[in-house]
Amino acid sequence: MKVLVINAGSSSLKYQLLDMENEAVMANGIVERIGETVGKLTHKAFPDTDNEKKVVKEEEIKDHKIGMHMVLDLITGSEAGVISDPKEIDAIGHRVVQGGESFTSACVVDGPVKVAIADNNPLAPLHNPANLMGIEVAEELFPGTPNVAVFDTEFHSSMPKEAFLYALPYDYYKELRIRRYGFHGTSHKYVSRKVAECMGKKAEDINVITVHLGNGCSMAAVEKGKCQDTSMGMTPLAGVMMGTRSGDIDPAIVAYIAENKGMSASEVDSLLNKQSGLKGVCGLNDMRDIHSAVENGDEMAKLALDMFAYRVKKYIGAYTAVLGNIDAIVFTAGIGENDDITRALICENLSGLGIDMDFDKNNGRKGEPTAVHTDASKVQVWVIPTNEELQIAQEAVELLK
Amino acid sequence: MKVLVINAGSSSLKYQLLDMENEAVMANGIVERIGETVGKLTHKAFPDTDNEKKVVKEEEIKDHKIGMHMVLDLITGSEAGVISDPKEIDAIGHRVVQGGESFTSACVVDGPVKVAIADNNPLAPLHNPANLMGIEVAEELFPGTPNVAVFDTEFHSSMPKEAFLYALPYDYYKELRIRRYGFHGTSHKYVSRKVAECMGKKAEDINVITVHLGNGCSMAAVEKGKCQDTSMGMTPLAGVMMGTRSGDIDPAIVAYIAENKGMSASEVDSLLNKQSGLKGVCGLNDMRDIHSAVENGDEMAKLALDMFAYRVKKYIGAYTAVLGNIDAIVFTAGIGENDDITRALICENLSGLGIDMDFDKNNGRKGEPTAVHTDASKVQVWVIPTNEELQIAQEAVELLK
Ligand SMILES: Nc1ncnc2c1ncn2[C@@H]1O[C@H](COP(=O)(O)OP(=O)(O)O)[C@@H](O)[C@H]1O
Ligand SMILES: Nc1ncnc2c1ncn2[C@@H]1O[C@H](COP(=O)(O)OP(=O)(O)O)[C@@H](O)[C@H]1O
Repeated sequence: MKVLVINAGSSSLKYQLLDMENEAVMANGIVERIGETVGKLTHKAFPDTDNEKKVVKEEEIKDHKIGMHMVLDLITGSEAGVISDPKEIDAIGHRVVQGGESFTSACVVDGPVKVAIADNNPLAPLHNPANLMGIEVAEELFPGTPNVAVFDTEFHSSMPKEAFLYALPYDYYKELRIRRYGFHGTSHKYVSRKVAECMGKKAEDINVITVHLGNGCSMAAVEKGKCQDTSMGMTPLAGVMMGTRSGDIDPAIVAYIAENKGMSASEVDSLLNKQSGLKGVCGLNDMRDIHSAVENGDEMAKLALDMFAYRVKKYIGAYTAVLGNIDAIVFTAGIGENDDITRALICENLSGLGIDMDFDKNNGRKGEPTAVHTDASKVQVWVIPTNEELQIAQEAVELLK
Repeated sequence: MKVLVINAGSSSLKYQLLDMENEAVMANGIVERIGETVGKLTHKAFPDTDNEKKVVKEEEIKDHKIGMHMVLDLITGSEAGVISDPKEIDAIGHRVVQGGESFTSACVVDGPVKVAIADNNPLAPLHNPANLMGIEVAEELFPGTPNVAVFDTEFHSSMPKEAFLYALPYDYYKELRIRRYGFHGTSHKYVSRKVAECMGKKAEDINVITVHLGNGCSMAAVEKGKCQDTSMGMTPLAGVMMGTRSGDIDPAIVAYIAENKGMSASEVDSLLNKQSGLKGVCGLNDMRDIHSAVENGDEMAKLALDMFAYRVKKYIGAYTAVLGNIDAIVFTAGIGENDDITRALICENLSGLGIDMDFDKNNGRKGEPTAVHTDASKVQVWVIPTNEELQIAQEAVELLK
């Protein structure tokens, strides 16, 4: 079975074509700056193999449909093609950010599903409309091929009420649908299952804390395979500190900034999403740049790094309390997989929780699942590369079989 | 030495006169509804003793000065007096809410101190001006008697930068002084020292998590006697769930509510402070009422209770991670001292963190320091009545000696 995975953003479209016989990536790429004067398509056939072929096109890409058409031409073309007929694609898996309370699992897209996705637009105004557009473009270009929607929020739909409800007037949950939804669910699901496999256990038999640290960062408390709590909230702003997002702050700060800076609440919101986090503290939002700056004696960069690790550490403690006891911690995503310094800072001095990192094993970037705890550690610590595309493709296969 | 402790609010004034020889309360009371048509003064001489005498007056009390004058007349009067001359009062201790970064310890009030307190008004607009008024009234009525200011934030001034800074643009800390200050410091200090005493240890030798659960609720991670982190933030809105305050929420919710309800940021702020928390979820904000409702089968009251305990549990985990290991947890204030059900819910299933409550010992209200852990528990669990007035009086004595 061949599955095309699509992640459509407001002005971009990422894709990956997977051969599910062997879970190999046949092609992947990204269409960027859709709607601008000069768009860009970067395509790779057989990426990271000896047969890799890369094609880059820079030209106006008016809309997502035209972008997707270009991708289809490349995939089936002679230059860097990997299949000869679009019909070879058995299913298309779509990442959809906000499933709200309508979706507790992935599902095959039909009319009512599209209505339900659109119904969640107010909760994810930047993402859901774009995701839906991706689905509609796929329906047009691949008539007859089933589309599957996989939600970022789905894995978190098992949270109990005391974890997902905010202590706000209850009407605000009923009417405005304000609650914790959580995001990065596909990644948390993937690595929480993968770590069980690596440990030779069933996901249903272990408690895991998953730590997804990329540009966006989130954590999840996973109890016997089910998400019990997660750090992002109604939106992806909440939780730990991120590249440009504040994470948790005293909610009174919003009004205080609004008043003192003459800003509207939504301008403050934008400040918290785009000018805060690592960038707010030290001016840099890429962890690699932060490490270089620290090496050059930049104290603000060091402070940003310490703040970042400190907040993750607190959530590890909180989720240990929630789960009662934990079997493993998993680090994943850009920082989680590649940044041994940050991982070490987070795990320092946690042996009171039974967490003993082997700092030698931790050294270096990890391209594959790697255990980084000492033999004596009660809790196992793993680094596991995430693979949201594979997870989406697997869910599509599962659903259609 | 006799110390008068004053806690002046915007329309109220609480007081307590302590004989520091034996730390006995000679008199206490409250002046309420100052400035309204009918004010109220409730005064007790020798409270909770066989000699207790209670006086209640209901009449117009125009301002704090008149209120304080009434108190002074009662204290020195024939009806319910406890001293014969105001000069017997050796010092007056004032609770001041916000010390900002200007104060890292209690201090004797002089001109510059008053300026510095006023300088923190923007950070505590409801509290600091009232506290300052209390000081000025005392200066007038007790000429020559030293006034000591004790700050709610002081105990937290030892927090390191990674704990007190928010991941916001750094300018917002420098210019607008946005940071975590923490509150209830006098209570956290008092019970964290008291528990050391009860355990036969020095405060400098143990790590403690203090859990202050009253109408306002906050927690602190206390490392060898010094506060390392606390749950309230720039304002007392943040942290765990409270009677009418939300505690932590996704900060994006402020703009979302503002937009959907047509409210200003400061109206949302007021909603989060006054209509949220236990009250928001189930309509009741007094824990006693919530327990009655739960007994009568009220599911929303049960949900509010579960949410409340769940959030405290998460902070216990977070602070255990921050401190590396802990020696004790202390419960205090109205709920912490009296509510065995809530304490039990919080401590359920925490043996993974070395915390084993003895649910029999935990039963009932605790009027004095009581250990409620099992003999096998690695972490001791205590209930310790807080005494902020005594702590303030002790600091005054300490400063003036
Ligand atoms: N070798 C590395 N060392 C430290 N950080 C790294 C390294 N490689 C990538 N990162 C960080 O990973 C983050 C991006 O993570 P990624 O998972 O790709 O993000 P996204 O959330 O956009 O999927 C960036 O902060 C980047 O600095
Ligand atoms: N016996 C009790 N059982 C449960 N809760 C109690 C009991 N007594 C007092 N409380 C609760 O304590 C809270 C008030 O705590 P207190 O420390 O007096 O508040 P404040 O923060 O105003 O000083 C209220 O929620 C009240 O319901």
